[in-house]
Amino acid sequence: MIIAETIQQLRAALRERREARLEQRIGFVPTMGFLHEGHASLMRRAKEECGYAVLSIFVNPMQFGPNEDFDRYPRDAERDIRIAEQNGIDVVFMPSVAEMYPKKPVTKILISGVTERLCGASRPGHFDGVGLVVSKLFNLVQPDRAYFGMKDAQQVAVIARMTEDLNIPVEIVPCETVREADGLALSSRNVYLSEEERGQAVILSRTLALAKEWVKSPGMTNRALSDKIKESIGQAALADIDYAEVLTYPDLEPLNDEAELSAYDGEILVALAVKFGRTRLIDNRLMELHGGGDHV
Amino acid sequence: MIIAETIQQLRAALRERREARLEQRIGFVPTMGFLHEGHASLMRRAKEECGYAVLSIFVNPMQFGPNEDFDRYPRDAERDIRIAEQNGIDVVFMPSVAEMYPKKPVTKILISGVTERLCGASRPGHFDGVGLVVSKLFNLVQPDRAYFGMKDAQQVAVIARMTEDLNIPVEIVPCETVREADGLALSSRNVYLSEEERGQAVILSRTLALAKEWVKSPGMTNRALSDKIKESIGQAALADIDYAEVLTYPDLEPLNDEAELSAYDGEILVALAVKFGRTRLIDNRLMELHGGGDHV
Repeated sequence: MIIAETIQQLRAALRERREARLEQRIGFVPTMGFLHEGHASLMRRAKEECGYAVLSIFVNPMQFGPNEDFDRYPRDAERDIRIAEQNGIDVVFMPSVAEMYPKKPVTKILISGVTERLCGASRPGHFDGVGLVVSKLFNLVQPDRAYFGMKDAQQVAVIARMTEDLNIPVEIVPCETVREADGLALSSRNVYLSEEERGQAVILSRTLALAKEWVKSPGMTNRALSDKIKESIGQAALADIDYAEVLTYPDLEPLNDEAELSAYDGEILVALAVKFGRTRLIDNRLMELHGGGDHV
Repeated sequence: MIIAETIQQLRAALRERREARLEQRIGFVPTMGFLHEGHASLMRRAKEECGYAVLSIFVNPMQFGPNEDFDRYPRDAERDIRIAEQNGIDVVFMPSVAEMYPKKPVTKILISGVTERLCGASRPGHFDGVGLVVSKLFNLVQPDRAYFGMKDAQQVAVIARMTEDLNIPVEIVPCETVREADGLALSSRNVYLSEEERGQAVILSRTLALAKEWVKSPGMTNRALSDKIKESIGQAALADIDYAEVLTYPDLEPLNDEAELSAYDGEILVALAVKFGRTRLIDNRLMELHGGGDHV
């Protein structure tokens, strides 16, 4: 496994591979490190499907707000390198901030529409930073496929749309969220949780499982579903709801509050962001509805 | 020569070339068509330096303002194809607007700093459209080198900076402006000019040639130079100045009005945009100054 800390080292590794004329494609897993089994599952899939797998580890300051957790975001390079090696990665790219941003960029990538709600609304500027760093990483690695976890469903929708709009020759592969035994979605931020918060955090995945049933109830409207979801989360005393929304997927447009969900035909996303103390967790569930309604 | 009207046709042509494993690189010349000798010189250089040359012809609606000349921009596909063939082009990519923008893009590329003056100021949104279409074309063609005429010096500066900020693996090659015998910079828009306007349009290149001398005069300040330039252009009765500016290059920052130019150390750009009737012409000249001043 090659560890590249500079763009020059990365490009040299990729050039060498190209000159070897391997028929393999390049699978790419961009991450912010502090790797967990969710990341590992992406790495294994990239390696298996493409034959050559590149992992990037970069905590991108441009996607954090001024009062967010950039400084205290968990980091453990040694452990990350071990996990990468165990999961078939060929090249780890782990640049410094100065390597990625040698001067203040004057180029911004602004994505509207899909960024208007959920984390786009509660973390202003977040997806501008994501769009910029993902564009840069795609240009540096030039992968055939890039693998993203669906825990960040909005991120997947945003990157897929940007890739389409800019004709970036990368296939975006959304991958299922990996969960703890009790249902908690894996996240590098889970380490922030106190024991009590960790116990209550299971309310997110539990509520999403319930929502999957509620959605099928006759007469269930969007508003009624949202109310039931919020009520369910409210049962966890430490939970502080940032958002709990039901949107179309992948366009992430709101549904009419009074619309009967059973009449909707297509995919909807139930998305949650909930704070436990200082820690903000997100989770979501995609649901396929086969209503008659206006859509048939 | 392959003529590709769709992205699929373009990608098929480029794939075939890659599979043939030619050692050639790809040289790319993006244009809006209505080709002239300026474009032809870029095509020949692309072919000569890279071995494989791709030309794109696309009048990009996103870089025209609502009251600009998108609809009447001159077009002649048959003649363009002939010129491309005569100048060594391997693939011409000439997509429709629907092919390039099958849906309204939600992704914007905004470039600040270098776009604040000159055409960035007098054509709001112009460089956002340029940034978007050039990003798309770079992602579609994936060239090793891209060739641009220096008549559009600001465009070259903007694209070079975007390419750097986004780590796009393309070398931007600025090429000297090609001129008529009397000095008029070649432009597809020159066909708009009446005979009288065409006669007077030579004032741009003449003024720039004079400015190259004036700059060396002892005590010449930025303000005095700008005044002399405007006075010179004013001698052409039909000339209506949009801008006449002296800026640093490639950052395109203004110089202090009272600064003595002889003391400046570095490249400066004298840039003009002048209307003759409905036709807006641009021209410029880069000048290398070797002052002592603050910069040594």
